[in-house]
Amino acid sequence: MNQTTNSKLPKRFLTEKTFQGYFFEDFEINQQLIHGTPRTITSGDISLYIALTGSQHLLNCAETVAQACGFKRLPIDNLLLFHIAFGKTVPDISLNAVANLGYANCRFSSPIFAGDTISVTSKVIGLKENSNGKTGIVYVHSIAKNQHDTTVVEWKRWVMVHKKTPSAPMGIDHIPDLESSVTINQNLIPDDLNFDNFSSDWTACKHRLTHYQVGEIINHRQGMTINDSDHSLATRLYQNNARVHFDQHMMSQSAAGKRLVYGGHIMSLCRAITHSGLANGLWLTAINGGAHLNPSFAGDTVYAASIILDKGHFDNREDIGWLRLKTYGFKNIDEETINELMMEPEQLRISKQCVLELDYTLLMPN
Amino acid sequence: MNQTTNSKLPKRFLTEKTFQGYFFEDFEINQQLIHGTPRTITSGDISLYIALTGSQHLLNCAETVAQACGFKRLPIDNLLLFHIAFGKTVPDISLNAVANLGYANCRFSSPIFAGDTISVTSKVIGLKENSNGKTGIVYVHSIAKNQHDTTVVEWKRWVMVHKKTPSAPMGIDHIPDLESSVTINQNLIPDDLNFDNFSSDWTACKHRLTHYQVGEIINHRQGMTINDSDHSLATRLYQNNARVHFDQHMMSQSAAGKRLVYGGHIMSLCRAITHSGLANGLWLTAINGGAHLNPSFAGDTVYAASIILDKGHFDNREDIGWLRLKTYGFKNIDEETINELMMEPEQLRISKQCVLELDYTLLMPN
Amino acid sequence: MNQTTNSKLPKRFLTEKTFQGYFFEDFEINQQLIHGTPRTITSGDISLYIALTGSQHLLNCAETVAQACGFKRLPIDNLLLFHIAFGKTVPDISLNAVANLGYANCRFSSPIFAGDTISVTSKVIGLKENSNGKTGIVYVHSIAKNQHDTTVVEWKRWVMVHKKTPSAPMGIDHIPDLESSVTINQNLIPDDLNFDNFSSDWTACKHRLTHYQVGEIINHRQGMTINDSDHSLATRLYQNNARVHFDQHMMSQSAAGKRLVYGGHIMSLCRAITHSGLANGLWLTAINGGAHLNPSFAGDTVYAASIILDKGHFDNREDIGWLRLKTYGFKNIDEETINELMMEPEQLRISKQCVLELDYTLLMPN
Repeated sequence: MNQTTNSKLPKRFLTEKTFQGYFFEDFEINQQLIHGTPRTITSGDISLYIALTGSQHLLNCAETVAQACGFKRLPIDNLLLFHIAFGKTVPDISLNAVANLGYANCRFSSPIFAGDTISVTSKVIGLKENSNGKTGIVYVHSIAKNQHDTTVVEWKRWVMVHKKTPSAPMGIDHIPDLESSVTINQNLIPDDLNFDNFSSDWTACKHRLTHYQVGEIINHRQGMTINDSDHSLATRLYQNNARVHFDQHMMSQSAAGKRLVYGGHIMSLCRAITHSGLANGLWLTAINGGAHLNPSFAGDTVYAASIILDKGHFDNREDIGWLRLKTYGFKNIDEETINELMMEPEQLRISKQCVLELDYTLLMPN
Repeated sequence: MNQTTNSKLPKRFLTEKTFQGYFFEDFEINQQLIHGTPRTITSGDISLYIALTGSQHLLNCAETVAQACGFKRLPIDNLLLFHIAFGKTVPDISLNAVANLGYANCRFSSPIFAGDTISVTSKVIGLKENSNGKTGIVYVHSIAKNQHDTTVVEWKRWVMVHKKTPSAPMGIDHIPDLESSVTINQNLIPDDLNFDNFSSDWTACKHRLTHYQVGEIINHRQGMTINDSDHSLATRLYQNNARVHFDQHMMSQSAAGKRLVYGGHIMSLCRAITHSGLANGLWLTAINGGAHLNPSFAGDTVYAASIILDKGHFDNREDIGWLRLKTYGFKNIDEETINELMMEPEQLRISKQCVLELDYTLLMPN
Repeated sequence: MNQTTNSKLPKRFLTEKTFQGYFFEDFEINQQLIHGTPRTITSGDISLYIALTGSQHLLNCAETVAQACGFKRLPIDNLLLFHIAFGKTVPDISLNAVANLGYANCRFSSPIFAGDTISVTSKVIGLKENSNGKTGIVYVHSIAKNQHDTTVVEWKRWVMVHKKTPSAPMGIDHIPDLESSVTINQNLIPDDLNFDNFSSDWTACKHRLTHYQVGEIINHRQGMTINDSDHSLATRLYQNNARVHFDQHMMSQSAAGKRLVYGGHIMSLCRAITHSGLANGLWLTAINGGAHLNPSFAGDTVYAASIILDKGHFDNREDIGWLRLKTYGFKNIDEETINELMMEPEQLRISKQCVLELDYTLLMPN
């Protein structure tokens, strides 16, 4: 045992071992980032996710039903998976991002279950300097895999980050092609999933795929007020360590003066709220695109309304179809105002009360 | 793949797919309601329940002890089971209830364990119009079963609900017989449970059945302050989606101006507080009756005191007996005032500080 | 069934069954205390601990990594174990303590896993009257064992408690020897643990044992604001029932006017914050000493900085070494002020912003 005798206080000196995140100049096209801290998902996460969001989506809370639909066990909610996988990318990509600008092409390719462990990598697919010389946009393609090296979810996102040293733009302008939606094909249906025996009694909701029409607007009419502890717990659960969500002492110096709610928490609240009207939208299989239109804070009450964009069937599948929709999140406004905004898209996107636009695809019993 | 080309925005129109709950006229005697969203209970729920309530009841937190008392595994706390089962009934019965008037005849007939899935149905057993022509009382008998179709808990409750269209009473006056207590017999003892090897060291509490006397009042002397996040998390965990608990934007228009704490959360806090003085009341086997006497809000500090109503033994069982008691929940008052109220029943029930009256039966080592 | 006919209300009388904690006179040297309520740790606790603290320490969240490091399953975070074990001792030792004065010689001797059940006993090892005649100090040695009677953690602590009846000191002055640090030897390495295959990719942190120098100061630069619900949930999860943490109605009469955050929650927040800069400090194996220098309250933002005190290797182990360090917790101050305080130890300990001093030993890949 070579234990140093340590009777005297050591001479003290400050070092810099704390990773403070990358700047625009640190990224290059095709760069591979291996994100730290793989995470095993447990049945504790399942319960916490329900407690944090109020989710009631059936395939993620009733194992008997999941088994009747072909799964061996209760699958983890895809948004819970997304947030945990997303959290892994934060230290390397968005620790000090100016803004999360958008998501695209998020595809849930394989279900995961309690006990599975998620590892995440990202590849830089685009870089674009801003004309102000101070910031730039980084585009990444992130892939989460389980312990068997199977891809479980992948997505693209773009964030605005600071330059280390502001300077005249050097002409970096590599914007990637981003598909406007995830391609619809049978790969969107998880292996094993079938709705052959589906009963509307399971959800107490009669509305199946056939009952939804393109252009239809549904006001989900539930409100969920965010408490500081709710969003802090959720964001810590996802091991997302962006300081803006947690550090009130720092954020009291910001324009808003308070902690920012993690945008993913708003996505989950809206998805939970849509249960009322979309209870049979049992499996969120893809996010075609998304944007956080305004920030949310503790004390805000979140509402949601959806518009059906499209729907269809899969070849050789009589049990299951797909519904593409946009769900909008709102804060602190009344039902009637939400209805008015939903009818006028040009008002909708500029409303200060609109916090989320999420374009996604659900699987639903025919 | 018949994916529609969707280059144009669809024509928008509002529809009504969001279920907004039933009105008095929607119910009829003997109507059967199959509640949606069966729920698998996980070990995450066990931990969350402890974190949310502070429960220390031994049979629900120590698997070694549960096994020494005959269970194969750690049984789920019966109040956690009750709240989850109750939550299932909310959309169909009390989504927009004016008031939850009372409970009776709640019997926990079979223990459940992590991994079990709960499904709930209700039958309408009574209907009574109010003379104001605006509201009526609905009485239901609800039954929760596990995945093997075994009844695990059943209860009766009555709620006041709005009429869809106010009108002069039509003479609907069907009030069911409600037993004043659950019958005491050996069916109240879960299969497998025995206290043959019980040791007071397990609870560090010397008081067994023999030490309690009818008429005895115990002030449990612990206070638990409710935070907004605590009660929101609990109520979401139970998938109880009554808006009054969550929607501050809406509730700011209510008389109190704030979100109402789910009454079941108060029941759980009081049960947890009674651990101090009733630690050997190991198994809550029946709720004879209960009422929420005043509302609770975040910021309130809850206290509890109990009076022993009755006690007794079971035939051929030397290990185990039963204790019937009433626990009262209080808010924001001092120990001495609680003692005074407990000694004067007529003051107790009209006190604005009294939030709960719960008449229940515990199993306890002899 | 000898069910008493209970038609009349029983005559009411107050009794005293609620245990209110021991006073100084109730303790004697070598007294053994068997603490109640053994507790089974579940995967729910794992997730809640992450959600409550933001912990990202790899061996406690990634089962694949834990297995690559020799464990059969995911081990429970040692601080989570400590808090649960500590909570068991509160009713008998510190329910009404004036102050928790310090910890020493805390050693985690065997890892535990989801499903294990913890039982705790304490022995009184020291007693010292204070000269004011009103209080005294009680020193205890506490031991937590799993269901196989294997010691999993043990520690010493001392608390100031009230005398039942103030009186002139009787000369009780038995202060135990408390080692200044846990002895470093191979017993500090859990059976099975090895870092032979360790990859820095797992933590995305390059700093291994060789990179840390004695005297080095690391400012971890993350802030975590405490919400009332966070600390209440954590403290209830640990079944620690000291009223000062929960009862706002009572605490509004205290000097601070608010609930006190459980000191162990601050320990966990600081350990979580140190991930940034000490991500490869994978296993907390011993706490040499600790003190809560100032109280914390909801609304405080906690920061942490560490100084490396010592480091070394183990005989015959090329994979693993040890790092002894002190982590200080701070509240509501800026990074620069923390750096200044860390460089001036005499200022540090008297700062009102310094809330924790924790001297501990980590295992780290060489």
